[in-house]
Amino acid sequence: MEIPVIRKVLEANSTLAGEVRALFARHGILALNLISSPGAGKTSLLERTLRDLQGEFRMAVIEGDLQTDNDARRVAATGARAVQINTEGGCHLDAAMIRASLDHLDPAGLDILFIENVGNLVCPVEFDCGEDDKIALLSVAEGDDKAEKYPLLFHLASALVLNKLDLLPYVDFDPVRAVHFATRLNRDLAVFEVSCRTGQGLPAWYDWLRARRAAKLAGRAR
Amino acid sequence: MEIPVIRKVLEANSTLAGEVRALFARHGILALNLISSPGAGKTSLLERTLRDLQGEFRMAVIEGDLQTDNDARRVAATGARAVQINTEGGCHLDAAMIRASLDHLDPAGLDILFIENVGNLVCPVEFDCGEDDKIALLSVAEGDDKAEKYPLLFHLASALVLNKLDLLPYVDFDPVRAVHFATRLNRDLAVFEVSCRTGQGLPAWYDWLRARRAAKLAGRAR
Repeated sequence: MEIPVIRKVLEANSTLAGEVRALFARHGILALNLISSPGAGKTSLLERTLRDLQGEFRMAVIEGDLQTDNDARRVAATGARAVQINTEGGCHLDAAMIRASLDHLDPAGLDILFIENVGNLVCPVEFDCGEDDKIALLSVAEGDDKAEKYPLLFHLASALVLNKLDLLPYVDFDPVRAVHFATRLNRDLAVFEVSCRTGQGLPAWYDWLRARRAAKLAGRAR
Repeated sequence: MEIPVIRKVLEANSTLAGEVRALFARHGILALNLISSPGAGKTSLLERTLRDLQGEFRMAVIEGDLQTDNDARRVAATGARAVQINTEGGCHLDAAMIRASLDHLDPAGLDILFIENVGNLVCPVEFDCGEDDKIALLSVAEGDDKAEKYPLLFHLASALVLNKLDLLPYVDFDPVRAVHFATRLNRDLAVFEVSCRTGQGLPAWYDWLRARRAAKLAGRAR
């Protein structure tokens, strides 16, 4: 009984996501949907990225949280535009929420839109938000078998950001094993080993953003 | 449209959870539902607890994962009985899954049943599995605002296990702030600051298990 109902919800979401995607394409906006467990460092990655690339791109963030506007405030402190969506218990963002948020941004004046999804490795993966790419984040404090245990995200993501590399000496985490599980699911996955605390590894992530945005403008991103 | 459907699913689950709870009561089983983000240390806590208390209680584990039986194998290596539920994409366990798992355990020969839910701070909270207590786990690598951002779990849990205390020198995490957010939501929350890696703080957790099991036998646990 449950499955057909969820299918209907997903179909309705897909239709809306198509409209949102068309809007992004019209404005040449690269839209990235960041998905991870709570605390893997999505907001920290955004704080760094927004600060380091603010002279280069016009960027905004849609923040998804069950409660609070903590993350939107952190992101807004960098000077970027931010919209907070409170799902009030909902476990994921969906295309309707993104569409509603766009009224509070100025799509014509945007190069890159980051969507920081609710902290959850499972449900957000199922709901297309009209993004160009899903970005998976994983912290080295989480255990190196997470791609094997939560495969759909890693299968669908364009990039994996392996964060908190500065903690590596203090945890039982084998980055080779973690990346092996993830890239076995998805040969095309771009992998960035970073520390948002120290800045290690971020330049490669920035280069990837530049390349994706250029591809988008050239009409080569989907 | 979505909300009434979810309500119906939750109502059906509640009915089944009541039956499961009655079965646990009949056998004097203390049932604990462990809920956290992926990688907070649920399996590590169980490995320690099963080894350290194996002379004292007859214990078993129901392991919930989207894929793999990694965790059931880790738990079975301690000598405890373990049943793996693969939800194949499902974001939480429910009472029907627990009832089906009990056929593979021997309820009459059990003192404590641990239910390790799917790694997810959101959805598992909504689905009663017939447990006596929900146990929230949080790792100090996740950020100290998680109770504020994911309040329902902390509101409903009986205990909070704050894990990976050995990482505290290397992360920006204020345990006082984390516990403050959690206990503001729930004055009765028992808090255990532990490291499953070093064993620090586990004796107090074990004492709490002993007290809950004694209360259950005395018919004072719900």
